[in-house]
Amino acid sequence: MSKNLFRKELDALRPYVPGKPIEEVQKEYGIDQIEKLASNENPLGPSPKAVEAIKREAENINIYPDAYAMKLKQEIAKRTNLSHENIVTGNGGEQIIQIIAQTFISHGDEALMADTTFGLYETSVLNMGGVPVQLPLKNYKHDLDGFIEKINDKTKIIYICNPNNPIGNILSKDEIENFVAKVPEDIVIVFDEAYYDYAKVNPDYPESLHILAKRPNTILLRTFSKVAGIAGVRVGYALTSKEIAAQMGKVKDVFNVNVLAQAAALGALEDTEHIEKTIKLNYDSIAIMEKYFEENDLEYIKSNANFIFANINTHSKPVFEELMKQGIIIRPGYLWKWDNWIRVSTGTIEQTEKFIDKLDGILKVEAVSC
Amino acid sequence: MSKNLFRKELDALRPYVPGKPIEEVQKEYGIDQIEKLASNENPLGPSPKAVEAIKREAENINIYPDAYAMKLKQEIAKRTNLSHENIVTGNGGEQIIQIIAQTFISHGDEALMADTTFGLYETSVLNMGGVPVQLPLKNYKHDLDGFIEKINDKTKIIYICNPNNPIGNILSKDEIENFVAKVPEDIVIVFDEAYYDYAKVNPDYPESLHILAKRPNTILLRTFSKVAGIAGVRVGYALTSKEIAAQMGKVKDVFNVNVLAQAAALGALEDTEHIEKTIKLNYDSIAIMEKYFEENDLEYIKSNANFIFANINTHSKPVFEELMKQGIIIRPGYLWKWDNWIRVSTGTIEQTEKFIDKLDGILKVEAVSC
Repeated sequence: MSKNLFRKELDALRPYVPGKPIEEVQKEYGIDQIEKLASNENPLGPSPKAVEAIKREAENINIYPDAYAMKLKQEIAKRTNLSHENIVTGNGGEQIIQIIAQTFISHGDEALMADTTFGLYETSVLNMGGVPVQLPLKNYKHDLDGFIEKINDKTKIIYICNPNNPIGNILSKDEIENFVAKVPEDIVIVFDEAYYDYAKVNPDYPESLHILAKRPNTILLRTFSKVAGIAGVRVGYALTSKEIAAQMGKVKDVFNVNVLAQAAALGALEDTEHIEKTIKLNYDSIAIMEKYFEENDLEYIKSNANFIFANINTHSKPVFEELMKQGIIIRPGYLWKWDNWIRVSTGTIEQTEKFIDKLDGILKVEAVSC
Repeated sequence: MSKNLFRKELDALRPYVPGKPIEEVQKEYGIDQIEKLASNENPLGPSPKAVEAIKREAENINIYPDAYAMKLKQEIAKRTNLSHENIVTGNGGEQIIQIIAQTFISHGDEALMADTTFGLYETSVLNMGGVPVQLPLKNYKHDLDGFIEKINDKTKIIYICNPNNPIGNILSKDEIENFVAKVPEDIVIVFDEAYYDYAKVNPDYPESLHILAKRPNTILLRTFSKVAGIAGVRVGYALTSKEIAAQMGKVKDVFNVNVLAQAAALGALEDTEHIEKTIKLNYDSIAIMEKYFEENDLEYIKSNANFIFANINTHSKPVFEELMKQGIIIRPGYLWKWDNWIRVSTGTIEQTEKFIDKLDGILKVEAVSC
């Protein structure tokens, strides 16, 4: 096979390695009940109104989806005081991130992002032949002054993940406003707000719609995968200027958000009861974990999302593996080169207590064996 | 806003213009019942087993999909005597076409395709900065000798849409075998077989899996949107060599096929009863339309798909508009610069007869008014 068959940009991308399905973990370790606290999913399940909408629409899936997702856009527009022309819908927030790179990044263009942050910014930029410029965190946060220093003629995009994944902390209203004032207008600032609904209960969290109103080259990324609990059907969206939305619309697959996903998102939007319950449970679960970390003198980052990032003072790989044997899946920090840290999604109270109980047992054994 | 903000390739892409929703057509023309024979959807509806599977899975959509779609791939692999490593799943066949361009096409690379054929080959190649080389049809078919003449060092991909959309005819086993023998091994041949299940009842239709077995740089594209009747949930897939599948897997969005789509496709795969009913109805509907065209001396192309392409000897735009007023939506040929032709999807017997009745009325009025 010819050496030049594939695009050279693909050399920089890692081949996808599928994770172990839960069924396989169950079989391998002989355990029935597995708590997955690894992917920041909603432990209460999907919005019941989303489920109803899916069952109602299930017979109509022989018809192609509305390529423009008009009803969904109109409902989002109402809630954000925007027009449907300011909205781009995606097959998950993930697809919006790919569309952003495909809209702006040509060979050699630079994009600024934190190290550590959500990994797809880097991959999507590499896929388009761009240069991801990754700045180490400073005091566990995006190094915004460092970002300003790195801006040059090639800079196309700045990614701000707020709250940052996997760290969980936010950049405040003041930090963001000071930063935005220093960024040239022709650079696109992407605020990834996947965890928006959890973070906005914090009065310091910036209202990014105000930034968009004044600064057209701004993109806000939101998702139905977290609070709404419909990660499985894939709906994310961008809020941006009409000009950018039109260009992003050219790049997206025509029928990218499926019939059931559009129906589910519409159902979930109305389901304020489910959202409120989800947020309450989230901070109850976080409180349980914080209490444990404090009592045991373990460092953790104050979370504004549906996961917590904590330092267990020992390598995360064996702890991750031992937790898995005991029926709990978390995300070990060594994957991001934070070897002694773990990221744990919030769960039900029972799941959270089970996690703390198992973690405590494992850390005590580790301590004895040292 | 800066002139260079967007990738220059986007200049060649048309902005998406949403079509009129059926509800709007109903309101505008004051008609309750609209027959949509425009998008080659399944008039019998979705596979009932697909619908059951969706209802069964609807409560589980808070969990991210299996990124690898392993169960679905294993079932497809069984039916094609391939391995799951030979398969790439997509959010509709549409996404597979985009992934193909993103896997192979760099700036200046050429791709050969028919003019007229499915429009997304051109768009996806332009989006990657490639050059679509479009060869006019010859006797209503892909000009395969012309393709061979156009091959040069820059040629990366050849697209063969078989059956061809919107024409509906096939290239035979012999035509394809002779062609493939002349194409250099390092050029990727894409056989778009979206209408595979309808075409394979024709003994002249090539068994492209045999070509793939001998020629690794071959991609077969299939979909669940047509026979299976689940266009609304978006599942398409590529069958190819393991090396190409691995590279395409790097480009695709991680969670691109949603939970319900995977479940629906698995259900539909088993539903041979629905597939058989669909194919029988398809050719019954085609027979009704053929009979009308023959009795009225209208030229048409022998169809091997779930639509028919016919010459109505008058401009398709006013006929399309008049049909819409009378409650029937078809695809007018002027969109492809076949001004006097129409593409009509097969429908139920009732829908097909209603279409013929309305068309006949319109063509007779046209004839009188000329």
